[in-house]
Amino acid sequence: MKKSLIILLLCSFYNIGAQELKSPSKEVIVHFFLNAEGEPNYTVSYKGKDVITASKLGVLLKDGTQLTHDFKVIHSSESSVDEVWEPVLGEQSSIRNHYNELKLELKQNGTNKLLDIVFKVYDEGLAFRYEFPFENKVNYFVISDESTEFNLTGDHKAFWIPGDFDSQEYAYNETKLSEIDISKLDLNNGIALKSITSNFRVQSPLMMKSDNGLYINIFEAAVNNYPVMHLDLITETFQLKSSLVPNALGDKAYLRTPGFTPWRTIMVSDDARAIVASKMILNLNEPSNIDDTSWIKPMKYVGIWWEMHVGISTWDYAGSQNAQNVESKALIPSGKHGATTANTKRYIDFAAKHGFDGVLVEGWNVGWEDWFGNWKEDVFDFITPYPDFDMEEVSNYAQSKGVKMIMHHETSGSVANYERHLDRAMNLMKQYHYPAVKSGYVGRIIPRGEFHDGQMMVNHFNFVAQRMADNKLLLNSHESSRPTGYHRTYPNYVASEAARGNEFNAWSSGNPPAHETILPFTRLLGGPMDYTPGIFEIQRSAYDSKKTEQVHSTLAKQLALYVTMYSPLQMAADLPQNYEQHLDAFQFIKDVPLDWQASIYLEAEPGDFLTVVRKDKKSENWFLGAITDENSRKTDIKLDFLTPNKKYIATIYQDGKDAHWKHNPKSYAINSVTVTSKSKLKINLAAGGGTAVSFELKK
Amino acid sequence: MKKSLIILLLCSFYNIGAQELKSPSKEVIVHFFLNAEGEPNYTVSYKGKDVITASKLGVLLKDGTQLTHDFKVIHSSESSVDEVWEPVLGEQSSIRNHYNELKLELKQNGTNKLLDIVFKVYDEGLAFRYEFPFENKVNYFVISDESTEFNLTGDHKAFWIPGDFDSQEYAYNETKLSEIDISKLDLNNGIALKSITSNFRVQSPLMMKSDNGLYINIFEAAVNNYPVMHLDLITETFQLKSSLVPNALGDKAYLRTPGFTPWRTIMVSDDARAIVASKMILNLNEPSNIDDTSWIKPMKYVGIWWEMHVGISTWDYAGSQNAQNVESKALIPSGKHGATTANTKRYIDFAAKHGFDGVLVEGWNVGWEDWFGNWKEDVFDFITPYPDFDMEEVSNYAQSKGVKMIMHHETSGSVANYERHLDRAMNLMKQYHYPAVKSGYVGRIIPRGEFHDGQMMVNHFNFVAQRMADNKLLLNSHESSRPTGYHRTYPNYVASEAARGNEFNAWSSGNPPAHETILPFTRLLGGPMDYTPGIFEIQRSAYDSKKTEQVHSTLAKQLALYVTMYSPLQMAADLPQNYEQHLDAFQFIKDVPLDWQASIYLEAEPGDFLTVVRKDKKSENWFLGAITDENSRKTDIKLDFLTPNKKYIATIYQDGKDAHWKHNPKSYAINSVTVTSKSKLKINLAAGGGTAVSFELKK
Repeated sequence: MKKSLIILLLCSFYNIGAQELKSPSKEVIVHFFLNAEGEPNYTVSYKGKDVITASKLGVLLKDGTQLTHDFKVIHSSESSVDEVWEPVLGEQSSIRNHYNELKLELKQNGTNKLLDIVFKVYDEGLAFRYEFPFENKVNYFVISDESTEFNLTGDHKAFWIPGDFDSQEYAYNETKLSEIDISKLDLNNGIALKSITSNFRVQSPLMMKSDNGLYINIFEAAVNNYPVMHLDLITETFQLKSSLVPNALGDKAYLRTPGFTPWRTIMVSDDARAIVASKMILNLNEPSNIDDTSWIKPMKYVGIWWEMHVGISTWDYAGSQNAQNVESKALIPSGKHGATTANTKRYIDFAAKHGFDGVLVEGWNVGWEDWFGNWKEDVFDFITPYPDFDMEEVSNYAQSKGVKMIMHHETSGSVANYERHLDRAMNLMKQYHYPAVKSGYVGRIIPRGEFHDGQMMVNHFNFVAQRMADNKLLLNSHESSRPTGYHRTYPNYVASEAARGNEFNAWSSGNPPAHETILPFTRLLGGPMDYTPGIFEIQRSAYDSKKTEQVHSTLAKQLALYVTMYSPLQMAADLPQNYEQHLDAFQFIKDVPLDWQASIYLEAEPGDFLTVVRKDKKSENWFLGAITDENSRKTDIKLDFLTPNKKYIATIYQDGKDAHWKHNPKSYAINSVTVTSKSKLKINLAAGGGTAVSFELKK
Repeated sequence: MKKSLIILLLCSFYNIGAQELKSPSKEVIVHFFLNAEGEPNYTVSYKGKDVITASKLGVLLKDGTQLTHDFKVIHSSESSVDEVWEPVLGEQSSIRNHYNELKLELKQNGTNKLLDIVFKVYDEGLAFRYEFPFENKVNYFVISDESTEFNLTGDHKAFWIPGDFDSQEYAYNETKLSEIDISKLDLNNGIALKSITSNFRVQSPLMMKSDNGLYINIFEAAVNNYPVMHLDLITETFQLKSSLVPNALGDKAYLRTPGFTPWRTIMVSDDARAIVASKMILNLNEPSNIDDTSWIKPMKYVGIWWEMHVGISTWDYAGSQNAQNVESKALIPSGKHGATTANTKRYIDFAAKHGFDGVLVEGWNVGWEDWFGNWKEDVFDFITPYPDFDMEEVSNYAQSKGVKMIMHHETSGSVANYERHLDRAMNLMKQYHYPAVKSGYVGRIIPRGEFHDGQMMVNHFNFVAQRMADNKLLLNSHESSRPTGYHRTYPNYVASEAARGNEFNAWSSGNPPAHETILPFTRLLGGPMDYTPGIFEIQRSAYDSKKTEQVHSTLAKQLALYVTMYSPLQMAADLPQNYEQHLDAFQFIKDVPLDWQASIYLEAEPGDFLTVVRKDKKSENWFLGAITDENSRKTDIKLDFLTPNKKYIATIYQDGKDAHWKHNPKSYAINSVTVTSKSKLKINLAAGGGTAVSFELKK
């Protein structure tokens, strides 16, 4: 407390520009000041504890302009907002947006250049962005760097992944800030394309915990027409600095006046649950651009997908995917092709029988014989099915069964090719009644020299969302730049991958048991993930006795993920035949809703555990998900979230007594009890385990 | 003769790979040999005179592979072709393809890498290309450089323009090779975007004349999936080397096996007419990929275009094109907008009255207020008309008058944006019955880092041609990479600009009188140009007394250009009101066909003069065009191309006796005489003048 007061005192001595802004709760305080060189600076404190020490703000332009120093404050203004809005789909039916705002209008001595900095302070943290005001005329400019600092107070524990410009599909490292060093990692992790140019660069959201008990998260919101921000770390001083993903020329962003950057966010709390429950990122995004959202519905789906990951079938029709059999005049079927009409009908039957909304089919279209790893431009045309996939027949059959088909567009990173074909691809979707698409971006980007996280790619993903919205289609992007709440603005952008998904458990070192306890503190803050849970046949050896890969989870934990990892698009990723072996456990996947009235995070510790309950949007039923890391865990859950004086049937899907993610992952137990709001639930989670509970209101 | 024999002797001493290939006439001889280092080399002679001295061949790959040395010939084969084919549109109704071919299959010692080199020798020159054979499997590779040499025998006179990666819109320089130096040029020439990185780099086609009377032309054919080749010159030794246009990463071309480069061509003759008449470039391209070509028709058109160039009206609706008035909520019309419904109807009326096929309208669509010079990505949407342009009304009116509308797609170089919108843009064309489009690429390319002449852009232009063909639409591209005969393969790609067009005469230093005598030896070898001739109001001062710019031509020469510059797409570029002042001269533009049975180049000297006669494809009528440079010229033309024993009415449109391109450009005279194949025509061309003649068969 004393320290931050002293800083303020010094600042006000040197600068007339010093300003303070508090959160509605008054617990989060940001100080803005100009130092003796006219450099914009800010500090952040929470409940009197320093969170961010004096950190500089500024932007560098390609033309040599340095919007970093010699500034004076020519005007400042404060305002407050307290409003409620309703997301189309979400963890809760209404969201409160409550913050205080400070806008500082700066002018640079000498150049007379203008730069505005806007702070918004919420109870769970703050956000700020740069704004480039309109000065009589439109100006175009290129950002060569953003010198935004986040100077931390100590050697916090951090949950981090490498600052790779092309992939976020890493398992998290849990180390002290001072121990961050990518050169010390084992990068034999199943990620084919890596673009790492600094050993001390990490991605955001960067989740941290300080020795004095603060949970701190650095992220960004509303990234649009701007590259993704990574963070460069000075390990000795715990200073972070923004690192924008460049394009082929090394430029960062092409902007014009009036314009602005994304919001840079710092969440802070002494309660980890405040971070995972925060809606700050959504609040910082623009409201929906779609007028009629009635067609945007959650989707629970199965699909021809996991069977390729475990080696039962292939995406390709002719026996290889690396261009080795593409020269024959006519492709000779290998007999292992997954996306056949017959197999698709089998999935449609299964979906219809169990009440699923959709069926995804990957590998339906020609091109998989030569799609991977060669930086090839003309890969797929997105409209030509393989000869054994009859679109008309599949579409008619799905419609007759009341099941929706989910299109698949793998671009292999050739964005130029995809954009050329997008309109035709969407026309095909409409012709055959596919209301949703899963897109993929495996491979180096074309236009060549671009990265997955650059401004061009950010704009691409947002463009596709817009075009899909124009055509009333849902989008689920894989290998995309990681989301920052743009699904508020385009709610048809229902999910994306943009992190290490369940698929890595099928054929790589996999995802450690702690993985799903970290994602809600990192990737999921930006938006729903198509994680593809629900794997019941945990071990790859079930398909091939020589294989040792496995899902790093118990079966019960796979159920709990449907609740812990919020998404309005959820796959039951395993094979129908595997679900048919465990129809009792499968019942939870059938029952769990994907859209909610309310969500309450009961317990949360990044890297350790998470327990959340959610109330179905359409009923009075509640659902609980609890997961743990590699350690077993016991906990008592008070059911006081239930409506008083009502009885509920709680069906509890939990780990068997002898369950263990590695040694006995498929052991589970299911039992039902009647409970009220006064009941307590004793939960036992196995190592790498989880518990799922449905609370059905007794009529 | 002796010298080349000696070279051959030396070669055969060192190398078993020495081979000789002769043209059908035996006058063009190419020698191939491997030198002591196993480096592929070739020489060329014509009628015993050296044309190309020992010049190396080879390709460098990005992975470090040097396909330049240590080769042995593992197989060689010869073949001959003599065939005739019929172009859809052209200077003649059938084209003979007659050449001898030598294929050398090389293997590199040590690496065992394969490289094939294929030579084709025609009577008017030779072509060669590199081929990358299929070796059991498909290989992808990146070409980092092509080290193809063209070593000349002396300090020839050259007609050259700078090796600019983004523009060919230069006036030609006529100097000795040793005098080539871009740093000495006045580049204040009206070209807004220049990308010149060497002062000794020139573009192809490079037309030359040797002291010993040989006309030599270095060019390329069938450039597809490869960048444009420029030529780097060593001025002391007259050595030229291929310089491929790079992408943002400095890479030149992304290829796979089996694959090949474009053809590198060397035309040579002691008669300049053999060069301009050559169909070698077309012969080296692939046959038409369009099965039904019945919809591909020549088009003579007028349009709302020149009036913007002379300042009468504007493309934009609201008064500026540099983003200075785009912030107002609703654009306020300046009153100078050219593309109004009423003005378009006036042009439609004019076209209908005078039998023109089409009307082009530029500036019809929103976006011109902020389109230029800012490297902006989202510029035009290609589908939204300005409020004063009623597409429905215009389309209906044009149809009622039997006139076709020509669409305009200015991309401002934002290719990414154009490709995203192309399908929708074509749908609009079909909806409103526009059978043809003029496209434009003014500005720096997006994806950023690409040049107009790089592989990506070459592929873009060819892609657009293909997509237009899919939709039975004709394409005329401006500011494109310069053509190399691809219109044989996609005959709907009826014309392009890709050189300094007539528009430069409206507002820049303009095109010197020699310009149009050089283009047939350079740019036009690759394909038809939309030069937009037919300017009758020669002087800009007619519109604005303060302006001194003018067309560097007499009025009669403007008529002659319709014959000398072959194109199946020709604009009568001047304003209707100007034509109405000279309806007698305008009659020639109305009469001249755009598709021909036969063409005979009667006289040709690059930089000095050109006289050609062409026979209408659909009748027995002939048309003559004769032009000169800044010097006046008299010549006698034998009419022995006319059918014997038939009478023709020759209508002669010539310069007035006192005509002069600068001092009296609008002086012309028209007279008619009856002629036969035995007649001679005395032609007097003024300085910067021309003559146009129609020969109508007397019934």
